[in-house]
This record gives sequence, C-alpha cells and structure tokens, in this order.
Amino acid sequence: MAKKKSEPAPTTAQALDAISFADALAVGPGFRLDELDPRATPAFPGAKTDGQAALAAGVDEISQLQERLYAQARAGASTQRLLLVVQGMDTSGKGGIMRHVVGLMDPQGVQITAFKAPTAQEKEHPFLWRIRRALPTPGYIGVFDRSQYEDVLIVRVRNLVPASTWSRRYNQINAFEKSAAKEGITTVKVMLHISKEEQCARLLERLDRPDKYWKYNPGDIDERARWEDYQVAYQAALEKTSTEIAPWYVVPADRKWYARLAVQRLVLEHLRVMNPQWPPADFDVETEKARLANS
Amino acid sequence: MAKKKSEPAPTTAQALDAISFADALAVGPGFRLDELDPRATPAFPGAKTDGQAALAAGVDEISQLQERLYAQARAGASTQRLLLVVQGMDTSGKGGIMRHVVGLMDPQGVQITAFKAPTAQEKEHPFLWRIRRALPTPGYIGVFDRSQYEDVLIVRVRNLVPASTWSRRYNQINAFEKSAAKEGITTVKVMLHISKEEQCARLLERLDRPDKYWKYNPGDIDERARWEDYQVAYQAALEKTSTEIAPWYVVPADRKWYARLAVQRLVLEHLRVMNPQWPPADFDVETEKARLANS
Repeated sequence: MAKKKSEPAPTTAQALDAISFADALAVGPGFRLDELDPRATPAFPGAKTDGQAALAAGVDEISQLQERLYAQARAGASTQRLLLVVQGMDTSGKGGIMRHVVGLMDPQGVQITAFKAPTAQEKEHPFLWRIRRALPTPGYIGVFDRSQYEDVLIVRVRNLVPASTWSRRYNQINAFEKSAAKEGITTVKVMLHISKEEQCARLLERLDRPDKYWKYNPGDIDERARWEDYQVAYQAALEKTSTEIAPWYVVPADRKWYARLAVQRLVLEHLRVMNPQWPPADFDVETEKARLANS
Repeated sequence: MAKKKSEPAPTTAQALDAISFADALAVGPGFRLDELDPRATPAFPGAKTDGQAALAAGVDEISQLQERLYAQARAGASTQRLLLVVQGMDTSGKGGIMRHVVGLMDPQGVQITAFKAPTAQEKEHPFLWRIRRALPTPGYIGVFDRSQYEDVLIVRVRNLVPASTWSRRYNQINAFEKSAAKEGITTVKVMLHISKEEQCARLLERLDRPDKYWKYNPGDIDERARWEDYQVAYQAALEKTSTEIAPWYVVPADRKWYARLAVQRLVLEHLRVMNPQWPPADFDVETEKARLANS
C-alpha cells in the first residue's frame, strides 16, 4: 500500500459505482437538466430533520479523512488533494455550501477561492490562468465558489467573447482537468440546481430583510431575465465537460438542507475512494522517546 | 451612526474594561509569565463540560458579528477587520485553536496564514514584509499561526541575527501594529501558555500514536532543551509589545478546553467592541421588488 500512495487514486464514475450520492447525481449520457426536479432528494429518502442529522453525522469521518490527506502530504508521502467546484445560478446556495458544509471541515486544510468578474490583470491572461493559480496544493481541499465554468456560462450568455472562442473552451477545460488529475487532484464538480420560482422567493427575501440587503444586487434581475439562456449554457457545459476523470454532479437545490447534505456526501465519497493514509514515522520512535525522557 | 462606520472602533484595554476574559488575561504593567499557572482558568469558574458548552454557545453571536463585519466591508461602508495572532511553544495547542475555534467561524470570512521558517524570497525582505502581505483585507478575520513574533522569539533564542538587530524589532513591531490599527485592523494577540510537563505529555502522545507521528519532529526536542530561554524571550516580547492599541493576552493552555474557550471569547469581546453594522441598501427596495415581480 505504501507504494501506491504517491499515485493519485482514480476517481471515475466507475470507481464510485457502489456509492449512492455520486451514483444518483452524476451526469451521464443523455442527461437533461430540464428533466431534473429541483425539489427532488435523490439517494436520500428522509425528511429535513433527518437530513440535518445526517449532515452532522458525516462530520467526523470527513474530518479524519481530511486530516489523513493533510498528514500524508506534509510527510511528502502523497500529492493527493481534492477540488470541489461549486456552480449555480444566483441564490442557488453557494454561500450556504461554504458556510454549512465547507465550514464543518478543518480550516487549516481548506483553500477557498471565490471567483468574481476577472480583474484587469486576469484579463491579460488566458482564462485558465487564474484557475491554475488557485488549484489546491497537495493535502488540501480546494473549494471554488464559481470557477472556469463562468467562462462558458455568463461569457457565453452575454457574448463577452466570440462564439468561436467560448466554443473551444469546453475541450480546453477537459484537457486542463485531465492534467490536474495527473498531478493528484480529484475534482468534484457540483451544480446547484434551483427553479426559477425558488430564485424569486430567495431574491424577495433579500429585499424584505435589511440583514440581507448586502447580498442583493440589481444586476441579479438582469441575469434572471436570461434564465432560459443560462439553462441552455449549463446543459451544454454539463454535456461537454462531464468526463470520466471529472464528472459533474447536479444537486437539486430548492431544498437547502438536501443540497448541503448531498455536497457533503459527494466530498465524503470521493475522499473514501482517495483513501489517504497516515504517513509512517520518518524518525526512530524509540530513540525519540528516550530523548524526550531525558529532556 | 452611518458616519462613524468608516472609522475603526477603538480597541484598547480601556474599552474592554467591562469584559471578563480580556480583562482577566491582558498583559499589563508588572506582568510575570512565570507567575501564571498554566492550569488556571481565569474568568471561568466552570468545569470542562461547562467550558465545552460555553464554546458551543458562543458560536451564533460570533457568526452574526462576523457576517456583519463582512457585509459592511463588501458594501464599502467600513475598513474594519480583525487579526488574531496565535503564539505558543510547540504543542501549546495552536492547531487546536485553528480547528476548534477558528473552525467554528464562516470560512468565507476567514484568512488563515501559518508562518514557517522564512523562505529564500522572504529572507530577501525586511522581517515584516511577509507579515504585511498577510494582513486581513477589510471585512475579514485574519488568523496568524505564528507571526512577526517569531522574529523576536526563535530568532533571539537561536541567535539567528545579531542582538542589535532583534532588539530593534520590538519597536518596529509596535509601530507596525499602530499603523495597522489606523487602517482599521483590530489586533488580538494571544500567547498559549503551557507548562514544560504538559509539553512532555503531549510530545509523548505524538510518539505513542501512529496517527500523531506526522505532527512530531525530532527538532522539537532541541527547542524543548531551550525552554528557559524561550520563557525569557516571551517575557520580553510580552513586556515590550503589549500596547494600548494591541495588547497581549496570555491564555493558560494546559487545559485545552479552557484555552479554546478563552480565545473564542477574546475574539467575541473584540468583535462586540468593533460593533459592525448591516450596511444600508444602495438601491431602492421598492423599485427592485417591482422589477422582481415583473421578472
């Protein structure tokens, strides 16, 4: 087993066959976003309180796997790391995933990057430049709040570059993710799927509560007006970039409690497949015990 | 009130007079590290289970204050931010503070930096260069796992630079922290104070448990051999750099549960003094409701 640790574990849809959330939510051939009910709760038959209890129950196992992942990298025994990519329309619950799912992990081992509209400096580089710089280092769980996929979503919907440019990006992203996998990165791509009606309710809440005003932006309504175009752009991205090495998972997100549980379980199931191990001592334990006793 | 928000709230020992942990743990004139019992639990009369319950009970208030801090900065209404500096001997529990105290905050609003021995690039710059680059941006809670104080602790004990150099650094640090305060940074400096006996027990645990080997380094025993020198260096740092604007707090840390509670409360008490506010809407709420209704 020790010999295997330096090679990244395979993380394909096949390897996860036995696992319920990954199995239930993976985007396979013929997937249609418009056929998935945003209020569904695939792989979880329970109610809200059951889901909340399950979320809490998952914390310890993730915590231990995360510490092993970190430890083996610190010891130079592995380059494994995990990247969680979170995409979704405005109000789909990306912030809640950060707070209530990523927030349950050890912050010392987490690297969150929130991608906004590219800066002037970022615009001088190819679109994957800022993404590459934000990839997690060995041992870490990287989390992208938005990602390279904005470059085939808002960029496509808003015609921010010519079609000939964005249409090439799907293959560029696939090549990029393949190369990341070779470096030891297990990528878990999640789309939080909400309904247009639920978005309306969530935007209204932001307008009704003074403690939520800061989350509201008038531009949100402009994007909402292009809802159908976004669904088409998401469908294209899901079809073209759900690969063996980096499959997409579409998580119904009208029920926040379900979305949070599902994302946690997707991370957990992938960490199990990665199967990080405590590194062996790189010192002689008895010698060190004797030194300590004499100190 | 809106006018005041752009000015950082004062965070001095005086402003915190009414507050128990800050009051009980602040380093004032005549403070002697060797007179503080590392097993004491100042400002908290309860037992371990009470302390753990109190830690859990503090989460919601910190969470709300943290969100306000973040929100007001996002809205451009304030430059306030908090910097938690954590220092202590090996095994004093710095990692546990990150995991069990910082880990209870929203990770979207936290920036952790773990300072190791300076890299070649860092060595080409003045010692505060890498510190300045890691200061939290407005709205964030920055956390330093080790800090600029290593440059008057291990550097002094190990004679890594001439005495004429390190002896100037206390004033340089004070000037640096004063300037940080002017930019809106409230600095909370914590020393985790353990006994030499407790360190022995914790190192032994790392040598007894294969899941802890990765935390052990034979160099830890070399540093332990200089225990008294480190205590002298800490005493000097505490005396020379506990200022009105950035006081030190020494937290007895032989009991992990107490140290975690105390650090959480120190952060909480400072956030209360900072008193961040939800920013007002920068759009017309009724107009936006109408736009949403028509969307």
